[in-house]
Amino acid sequence: MTLRIAEIFGPTIQGEGALIGEPTVFIRAGGCDYRCSWCDSMHAVDSAYRHAWTPLSDNAVWDQVRDLSGGRPLTVSISGGNPAIQDFSGVIALGKAEGYRFACETQGSIAKPWFAELDTLVLSPKPPSSGETVDWAAFENCLTAAKGCRNIVLKIVIFDDADYAWAQQVAKNHPDLPLYLQPGNPEVDPNQPVDLQVTTDRLLWLIEKVTGDGWFTPRVLPQLHVLVWGNKRGV
Amino acid sequence: MTLRIAEIFGPTIQGEGALIGEPTVFIRAGGCDYRCSWCDSMHAVDSAYRHAWTPLSDNAVWDQVRDLSGGRPLTVSISGGNPAIQDFSGVIALGKAEGYRFACETQGSIAKPWFAELDTLVLSPKPPSSGETVDWAAFENCLTAAKGCRNIVLKIVIFDDADYAWAQQVAKNHPDLPLYLQPGNPEVDPNQPVDLQVTTDRLLWLIEKVTGDGWFTPRVLPQLHVLVWGNKRGV
Repeated sequence: MTLRIAEIFGPTIQGEGALIGEPTVFIRAGGCDYRCSWCDSMHAVDSAYRHAWTPLSDNAVWDQVRDLSGGRPLTVSISGGNPAIQDFSGVIALGKAEGYRFACETQGSIAKPWFAELDTLVLSPKPPSSGETVDWAAFENCLTAAKGCRNIVLKIVIFDDADYAWAQQVAKNHPDLPLYLQPGNPEVDPNQPVDLQVTTDRLLWLIEKVTGDGWFTPRVLPQLHVLVWGNKRGV
Repeated sequence: MTLRIAEIFGPTIQGEGALIGEPTVFIRAGGCDYRCSWCDSMHAVDSAYRHAWTPLSDNAVWDQVRDLSGGRPLTVSISGGNPAIQDFSGVIALGKAEGYRFACETQGSIAKPWFAELDTLVLSPKPPSSGETVDWAAFENCLTAAKGCRNIVLKIVIFDDADYAWAQQVAKNHPDLPLYLQPGNPEVDPNQPVDLQVTTDRLLWLIEKVTGDGWFTPRVLPQLHVLVWGNKRGV
């Protein structure tokens, strides 16, 4: 299998969601079926960057992950873009044979059999502010494909009140999935610094909404990597 | 049972460790058998503040938690000071009967039978920079008392290289306990603002140590409440 890879980097820590703080090597797949208005990884999404996506075999991908991690098993996060466009079953099999764990983050628009091989599947359906519309039948197919994965979670990015109301409805429809809410980051220019106060103020806004409403099921988390590194890539 | 309570506040989110981001009401017990040099909750530790610790019955404590949470079950975190000085079994029984979940955070110096009734027990043995010395026999007694609690985790605050080396040894002695590392916060004056850049730089320092050493078992997390609220109390 030849994969289109935007970047492989780490070890660093997972900056968001269910595995926040966990030492991780990231495999960022190139290509996406979405064009979210506020995408923070356009270099792995827009075809204009396609020349920078390296075609790599399963073994070549795995060799890089092994080298970066010094052969010490850790969590490997497959992200993108939408990694579900491609077939990561070979990479997962190579890694699991050496004791590594795998997480994948996808919007839930494309189901893949290899979801069932993951330790953690993060489904992050995109709220109205993204400009995308969720295909809920496809989302359900992802849940079905992931049967056997012991940790399936929802992560929703919240930019505004409409996103928040939408997330409440999604939570109502999927009460069995642990839910992580994350304030949206409007400052995604990799060449511009991030204002820490703006970032923490947005977290405060979301915390106050959730606790003020007595909505106690989601966890509210920031993007740690943005707090620590701003929009720098490869960390 | 009459309890000495420094404060009851929330709902807010849990700022650190295994339940980071989780909507929580905090019960902060008054009194502590430790005097950590960098304690960030001295108002619940030092006897000089004892006049501000309210004697409350189990029912009075529980009434406050129920009021704050609007009667909607959530996670209640019992912290301090060292809450293990006192008997929280009555409060836990009242809350569990109404569907609430309980976490407790303690240094692990005093074992209590009610540890077994918790959903989460956070044991945070104090590193050398605290000026305290851990009694590991007492710590083991805490683990024994907590048998039946499904989520027992370790949290260690790291101020310097000596703390870090100490944490590695603790991890080696307790490989089965999930470990959370947290950079120490040297800015604990409630009347002084926190420098966000200093706080995130300390997180970066700890992330780089852990990933640079290929130590992939602990999660590295900041104190979100410090990022959002500084040293303000009651949030």
